Amino acid sequence: MSLLDNIHSPADVRALPAEALDALCAEIRERLVTELAVHGGHLASNLGAVELTVALHRVYDTSRDRLVFDVGHQCYTHKLLTGRQDFTDFRDMGGIAGFPRPGESVHDAFIAGHASDSVSVALGMARARTALGADYDVVALIGDGALNGGMAFEGLSDAGHSGEPLVVVLNDNGMSINESVGGLAAMLGRMRTRVEYIRFKKWYRQTIMPHIPGLNKVLARAKRWLKERLIPDNIFDDFGYEYIGPINGHDIRKVENAIRWAKEYRAPVLVHVITQKGRGYGPAERDPETFHGVGAFDPDSGEPRPTGEDFSAVFGRTMTGLAGEDPTVVAITAAMKEGTGLIGFQQAWPDRFFDVGIAEEHACAMAAGMAAQGLKPVFAVYSTFLQRSYDMLIHDVALMGLHVVLAVDRAGIVGRDGVTHQGSFDVAYLSSVPGMKIYAPASFAELRTMLRKAVLEDTGPVAVRYPRGGEGGYLADSSDEPAKTLYFHGDDVTIVSYGTEINEAMMAARMLRNGGIEPEVIKLNVLAPLDTAAVLASVRRTGALLVAEEACAAGCIGEQLLAAAEQAGIALRAVRLVNLGDGVLEHGEPWKLREKMGLDNGSLMRTVLEMLHGEEKA
Amino acid sequence: MSLLDNIHSPADVRALPAEALDALCAEIRERLVTELAVHGGHLASNLGAVELTVALHRVYDTSRDRLVFDVGHQCYTHKLLTGRQDFTDFRDMGGIAGFPRPGESVHDAFIAGHASDSVSVALGMARARTALGADYDVVALIGDGALNGGMAFEGLSDAGHSGEPLVVVLNDNGMSINESVGGLAAMLGRMRTRVEYIRFKKWYRQTIMPHIPGLNKVLARAKRWLKERLIPDNIFDDFGYEYIGPINGHDIRKVENAIRWAKEYRAPVLVHVITQKGRGYGPAERDPETFHGVGAFDPDSGEPRPTGEDFSAVFGRTMTGLAGEDPTVVAITAAMKEGTGLIGFQQAWPDRFFDVGIAEEHACAMAAGMAAQGLKPVFAVYSTFLQRSYDMLIHDVALMGLHVVLAVDRAGIVGRDGVTHQGSFDVAYLSSVPGMKIYAPASFAELRTMLRKAVLEDTGPVAVRYPRGGEGGYLADSSDEPAKTLYFHGDDVTIVSYGTEINEAMMAARMLRNGGIEPEVIKLNVLAPLDTAAVLASVRRTGALLVAEEACAAGCIGEQLLAAAEQAGIALRAVRLVNLGDGVLEHGEPWKLREKMGLDNGSLMRTVLEMLHGEEKA
Repeated sequence: MSLLDNIHSPADVRALPAEALDALCAEIRERLVTELAVHGGHLASNLGAVELTVALHRVYDTSRDRLVFDVGHQCYTHKLLTGRQDFTDFRDMGGIAGFPRPGESVHDAFIAGHASDSVSVALGMARARTALGADYDVVALIGDGALNGGMAFEGLSDAGHSGEPLVVVLNDNGMSINESVGGLAAMLGRMRTRVEYIRFKKWYRQTIMPHIPGLNKVLARAKRWLKERLIPDNIFDDFGYEYIGPINGHDIRKVENAIRWAKEYRAPVLVHVITQKGRGYGPAERDPETFHGVGAFDPDSGEPRPTGEDFSAVFGRTMTGLAGEDPTVVAITAAMKEGTGLIGFQQAWPDRFFDVGIAEEHACAMAAGMAAQGLKPVFAVYSTFLQRSYDMLIHDVALMGLHVVLAVDRAGIVGRDGVTHQGSFDVAYLSSVPGMKIYAPASFAELRTMLRKAVLEDTGPVAVRYPRGGEGGYLADSSDEPAKTLYFHGDDVTIVSYGTEINEAMMAARMLRNGGIEPEVIKLNVLAPLDTAAVLASVRRTGALLVAEEACAAGCIGEQLLAAAEQAGIALRAVRLVNLGDGVLEHGEPWKLREKMGLDNGSLMRTVLEMLHGEEKA
Repeated sequence: MSLLDNIHSPADVRALPAEALDALCAEIRERLVTELAVHGGHLASNLGAVELTVALHRVYDTSRDRLVFDVGHQCYTHKLLTGRQDFTDFRDMGGIAGFPRPGESVHDAFIAGHASDSVSVALGMARARTALGADYDVVALIGDGALNGGMAFEGLSDAGHSGEPLVVVLNDNGMSINESVGGLAAMLGRMRTRVEYIRFKKWYRQTIMPHIPGLNKVLARAKRWLKERLIPDNIFDDFGYEYIGPINGHDIRKVENAIRWAKEYRAPVLVHVITQKGRGYGPAERDPETFHGVGAFDPDSGEPRPTGEDFSAVFGRTMTGLAGEDPTVVAITAAMKEGTGLIGFQQAWPDRFFDVGIAEEHACAMAAGMAAQGLKPVFAVYSTFLQRSYDMLIHDVALMGLHVVLAVDRAGIVGRDGVTHQGSFDVAYLSSVPGMKIYAPASFAELRTMLRKAVLEDTGPVAVRYPRGGEGGYLADSSDEPAKTLYFHGDDVTIVSYGTEINEAMMAARMLRNGGIEPEVIKLNVLAPLDTAAVLASVRRTGALLVAEEACAAGCIGEQLLAAAEQAGIALRAVRLVNLGDGVLEHGEPWKLREKMGLDNGSLMRTVLEMLHGEEKA
């Protein structure tokens, strides 16, 4: 029986003798590789954080102490140690989530998925503890990539100055998702390697640190005075943290000692831990970028199971071509050059490719500055992360009507990455941005055509939103009109959809026709400004409207179409809006989520039958 | 004739002999005090930046070089020097705007109003220059308060590492809007005062700096190597900037020399200038917070002209009372404790008051952490600035259904602060946040009742949105129902409104009734979840609906009501949605903006007449 089999809760981790920990870590690594080879997931970052996570559970009781993950994709070891070793349905509907989920375990203190919020959340918790006179510890675990996000800086500044006992553990693998970029990364690089600094730190740790818990405030102040004058400051000292590091993140005793000391210091402490992404699995050590987020792969060779073409790849190749046609085209990503398909662009046009790190706000404002001075910037970003640029879209882009192009990837159902990653909101929030044009391609051909229009022909802010994954049966290009009737010109019901959901709508329409109902299917190509003429003309004839869309209910296109119909004086006898609803969409296989929300072709067909033959609407 | 009268463009500033500059600055200060005593505006920050602005115009040609303001309320001297000395209609409709406006002058490089974007925008411009082979300089002017915002950090990190010739001028008055808070402010404080540091800098400037433009790359690297080892780093060095400072911002020769040197260095340079907020006007020097943004005042005494009670003050007092009733209530502001009315709360409950500086993202995520651990946090924030928290509202608050209360001040028409400050979008973006409840008080009494419900009774995310300024004729409290028919139960037209716009709707209804038309006026108290029952019942009877609201058209309540009417199978014979439209709302007196958008009672009345007696709708 393995060590891991006997870990039912973190108490079992704490009960292990220190000598057993290296063996436990080795078992965890083996388990991670085996499980993720089948299920896919974030392999490299989890392999890097094994010792760190074990050490945290040696020091903290996460059933009451609050461990706040940042981004959270490095939480797999945490899940294995907190009673969640059954990965059978990992990231499937009803299975263990790939990110921290407070509903899943008392050991998951807070949701995670978007970067850079952990210090802010942890500070809020620490302040709540103080205000309520409670007794627990708070620790934030943040990677160097997430540290690049501005909110992390806001949180660090406030927390360092707060005096709240609080530990920030910086898991620094020098990589973030791609290699880190910018001044912060360079600074961390110097901190990791500066010899004098490390020498001083060694002396400092050996001679000063052991006595600290017994030192009174005066001595602590004296130490700080001395330190400020004798050693190079770093930003963490500057912000009011007791800084410990850099520490070898794979030496579990050192990591555990540092975290234990930090916990006992009763003030803001930053523990700087150096880890290796992909640690302990050859293929991931050699190529951590590829193994950041993986699908199923062969555990022996590390070779990925083959997958098909997808929208991201088509976007990337189209961009490379457009840049060849127009020298003013540039591409921007916020640490997602692989995910957004821009690797080839970077190779072809290195001087016109800008990876700003996890910094969506900056990316958007910088794009505005570029557009103001004559470039055509294209910011490729996931729908869920673009939420962070909402204010910049209005303030920096739209108020001046600047021609910034947004390539909105992962729009609609994202699936297994779950609640924090679903692209549910972009239709609503982009529609509210003044002058924003929104394209919704449903095929690779349409993505190519629409992106070309957006970049080379349109003016002002413009977004092209496309889903995760590949195209379906619809391979055509109907982008010559903002809204296009695809077929059947039937008189019984108008079915409206856009994006790849059009495949479900078309399938449903065919089934309905086989059943003797004559539908009309209208595909929207431009969501804003919304051209309602084709839909209104159709519903005048059919009197029945079903709108199927991968977007949240509030502000959805269906709502806009209904308002337009009402303003046009059209009374519909039957209406159904099928969308992602008003709630929170959990993780699961995309097809299951589609079924759950009634967006699959079978559900759509049944909904139409119910509309036409069922009871009257309220 | 004064010096200022002869300044028609910045070329005239550059033509002045250096000896005349102090006199010019004195004249500018006198003009600022005189003009703002009449028109109001941001006095203290402009008084502090006079020499700095003159120096910038001595060094740069802002007709082609790009000067990017941050927040931009310190741009008045810039306006005076760039052909805009006629302040007669300052901040009125059609007059000079209180913030940079590219449409107003070629010297205004970019819009400004929201904090912390200037370095990002400037970097985008610098990269555009390089990519297009153009020849101009780029300079960002940022205050210490805006530096606290995370996006500034994102921009600084990227720009410092970019190698782009670019100058960031840090206008450090140690105050931001209130006194700065957090670790960053503490760090700047130490930088301003550290004696050894200044001594070194003096030596460095006198012996090394003059020779720099001639040094080759090797020597520059050697210098950096030396500097890194010999002097305390600061965050700007760390991020890759050549750091110059601190410099006395009221010694115009020193400031001009530093900026000139920075311009010629052809790499990222940060110039740290220390200024005094309110400089040169006694009352503002003594009390710069009060003189941050002022209405009209007596120029001799500095005493403000009296103004009435407003929603912000009522909010603040109510909060102080609620905190007395419930020990878990805490208040959060992002550098707006005066604007949001929280001064009294801070005095009464200093340990439960958190000013996080200009950091709306952090404020919201921190509030989520507080709520997760049992506090009842209330984040008081202007509608326009809450745009920056959109992602945190979804990710950190809504996905876990946390009870965070948003006190959304300056919702709707803001007026003279203009395009960057209008509260046009909160109804749309808050409606899309899962589970968000939105109250819309129209009187002080309702604000008190609704805030109490939001804080003490509701669960989950909840917002209370209220306008700038005071209440109107409506003084009642109808908050016992989500939607309330106020009067007339007429059969001719349903008029729906919320917030203080209800005053215009009621007035219009009375006039209509006098003219023989029987309206029904329904006041919405809760905008989300939207209870449509009362409105639908009314329009079933009247068949005509007018919705008047201070919100952008996309996602507005009128659209939602129309969609609900269509779903309910109600055919309306006449519909009008009157709102803030799809475009950009310029600055101007609130009543003029109301008229322009057709939201005043006269326009509403005429719109109803047109609906009922005019031509049929399309």
